[in-house]
Amino acid sequence: MCQLLGMNCNTPTDILFSFEGFHRRGGLTDHHADGWGIAFFEGRGCRLLLDDRSSVESPVAHLVRHYPIKSQNVIAHIRKATQGRISLANTHPFMREMWGKYWIFAHNGDLKDFAAPAGHFYRPVGDTDSEAAFCLLLERLRQRWSEQPPLDELFAFIETLAREIAAHGTFNFMLSNGDILFAHGSTQLHYIVRQAPFTKAHLVDDDVTVDFASVTTPDDRVAVIATQPLTDDEAWTPFEAGQLMLFRDGTPLVKSAKAPD
Amino acid sequence: MCQLLGMNCNTPTDILFSFEGFHRRGGLTDHHADGWGIAFFEGRGCRLLLDDRSSVESPVAHLVRHYPIKSQNVIAHIRKATQGRISLANTHPFMREMWGKYWIFAHNGDLKDFAAPAGHFYRPVGDTDSEAAFCLLLERLRQRWSEQPPLDELFAFIETLAREIAAHGTFNFMLSNGDILFAHGSTQLHYIVRQAPFTKAHLVDDDVTVDFASVTTPDDRVAVIATQPLTDDEAWTPFEAGQLMLFRDGTPLVKSAKAPD
Repeated sequence: MCQLLGMNCNTPTDILFSFEGFHRRGGLTDHHADGWGIAFFEGRGCRLLLDDRSSVESPVAHLVRHYPIKSQNVIAHIRKATQGRISLANTHPFMREMWGKYWIFAHNGDLKDFAAPAGHFYRPVGDTDSEAAFCLLLERLRQRWSEQPPLDELFAFIETLAREIAAHGTFNFMLSNGDILFAHGSTQLHYIVRQAPFTKAHLVDDDVTVDFASVTTPDDRVAVIATQPLTDDEAWTPFEAGQLMLFRDGTPLVKSAKAPD
Repeated sequence: MCQLLGMNCNTPTDILFSFEGFHRRGGLTDHHADGWGIAFFEGRGCRLLLDDRSSVESPVAHLVRHYPIKSQNVIAHIRKATQGRISLANTHPFMREMWGKYWIFAHNGDLKDFAAPAGHFYRPVGDTDSEAAFCLLLERLRQRWSEQPPLDELFAFIETLAREIAAHGTFNFMLSNGDILFAHGSTQLHYIVRQAPFTKAHLVDDDVTVDFASVTTPDDRVAVIATQPLTDDEAWTPFEAGQLMLFRDGTPLVKSAKAPD
């Protein structure tokens, strides 16, 4: 199974601590050695780093671990190939432009019998179910609106689309345009919001502890979303099955109602 | 003025030698310190590395210099900001998907009074004339064809569009979809095709010599395109003003006729 990691903050923050544990799941503490990628939004721009090697061996991961890129929105993914060959074109996250902004998407899960028709606006380049689902999401949004709609309408429609696609299988995903971040839990997804008073936290995957009080200001607020909790001494909240959440400035803005059984 | 570098080959080749001289133009041997970027196609996938720091200071450039990524199509750019702030969103190369492939574009020059209308398919994210020109190019291509047309038709239409846009100023550019590479010379662009028998070459910007015979096979063919020749002991061919060229597998396939005066 693939691993997802997302971060949404009210101030540009580096992801070194979370990435330290996360990247070890790519071939060292877990079996996800079929490539990995990470996208950092910086203003309207996006730095997308992809590698089709495992994240513990990757020189790009080495760069990320030693070059503290500060960002308000980050999405990372470690891949365990289920559909589609191991190749750069099939490596998450995927990026497209919509409504004059870059959108980034990463998916964990497996969609069965999922064949999206070729879109008018968006087409996949690789051959994964994940990129096809991303293109379908954007296609339906762009068909409906030629400019970004109010957030409540956007949320409601993405919730509908997510439910439709999730009928094909496991659909844990993250989606961001550098301002807002959507996270959808299908089977496994957890989040935590860190804010003052900051305390210490200890990584599950590595014997590393960070004292957030020493690296933050009292106004900082950081939401971290991950497949499995990254720390073993903080209270992570699991997503309910079929739950969509919208984060902005480190705050969960909207949660969907529990999905119908 | 910005600097462009492109490579198109018949076998995946690393760009370390050319990049060694090229990256020094970003703040050391020349004044282009407003960011840089490089795109490597690997199959249908594309690895796009961007940095809004100068290329001599950039840890991403350090990565490129020490991690020999092999690719058949590469486009790199060092920026001297003329229009648009220094930011990641304004850093070349730019990427979009068209006809189910990624397209990469980088531009050297300055377009005056150039305002492209918001496209149906493509919109700029940043605020440079370059990204606006890229989006206009793709918009007009995508409006005309919903699938990639034969190369001669594609070439003829890109030539028309390039002439239209070049009426606004200097429009040296490179454009690739990972299979073919277009290069358009407006004021300054040079190319060379290296093939057997391979010889030695010496960089203009650095006292480095490479013996291509020792790093190639007799069947290799590599076209390198750059704003200014990168070596001082090879015969680079200058583009004529208004000349468009199409490269595939290291071979110049088509050259436009000399543009009308």
